[in-house]
Amino acid sequence: MNQDFLWIEQLKFNEQGLIPAIAQDYRDGAILMMAWMNRESIQQTLMTGEVYYWSRSRQELWHKGATSGHIQKVKELYYDCDADTLLLKIEQVGDIACHTGKRSCFFNFVPLNYFHQI
Amino acid sequence: MNQDFLWIEQLKFNEQGLIPAIAQDYRDGAILMMAWMNRESIQQTLMTGEVYYWSRSRQELWHKGATSGHIQKVKELYYDCDADTLLLKIEQVGDIACHTGKRSCFFNFVPLNYFHQI
Repeated sequence: MNQDFLWIEQLKFNEQGLIPAIAQDYRDGAILMMAWMNRESIQQTLMTGEVYYWSRSRQELWHKGATSGHIQKVKELYYDCDADTLLLKIEQVGDIACHTGKRSCFFNFVPLNYFHQI
Repeated sequence: MNQDFLWIEQLKFNEQGLIPAIAQDYRDGAILMMAWMNRESIQQTLMTGEVYYWSRSRQELWHKGATSGHIQKVKELYYDCDADTLLLKIEQVGDIACHTGKRSCFFNFVPLNYFHQI
């Protein structure tokens, strides 16, 4: 095995062999999307420097931006304390990560003005 | 049902009734942790203004910081385009989110200097 892939064995994949991956803009820290990766997509990401996810709806390797042009270039890669989530700091080509055409997938705002305390 | 909870029905929970929730520092955008919520934890979060997760290891409602004191106060709440991930912008009391004592759970850095392109 490629020595650069050894750390992948530390990760805890779920029953489907997947791990959630958060994509964050490396410039300003905006959270752009959350998607899922499997071993193959992580390896492809490492080898190419462009982000590959696993599409759960299509059940196939998903080279983000391959059709839209909105590819993601990895700048930094982290995993968390219990090794079950990835954090990708990326350069978002075109500054559009969401399939809706928006910069970030997290555009649904829930008003919190009914909070008892904040 | 409390009218303020109606939006929760938009969400897509997984087979275990859970949805991933990303906690981001509302001040500087740092990603602090990723954990899981169910309907009850979302409702408790909305009612109290403090973050409740669902502990998958303990299989119980988890008032983040209840024992450590490192509670999280919700400042903004979003969900993504396909309604299967939450984003919580929070104030992290004590500036420590991770059970290891670190500020963020994402402290494991994967070097990428072997990239073909970046």
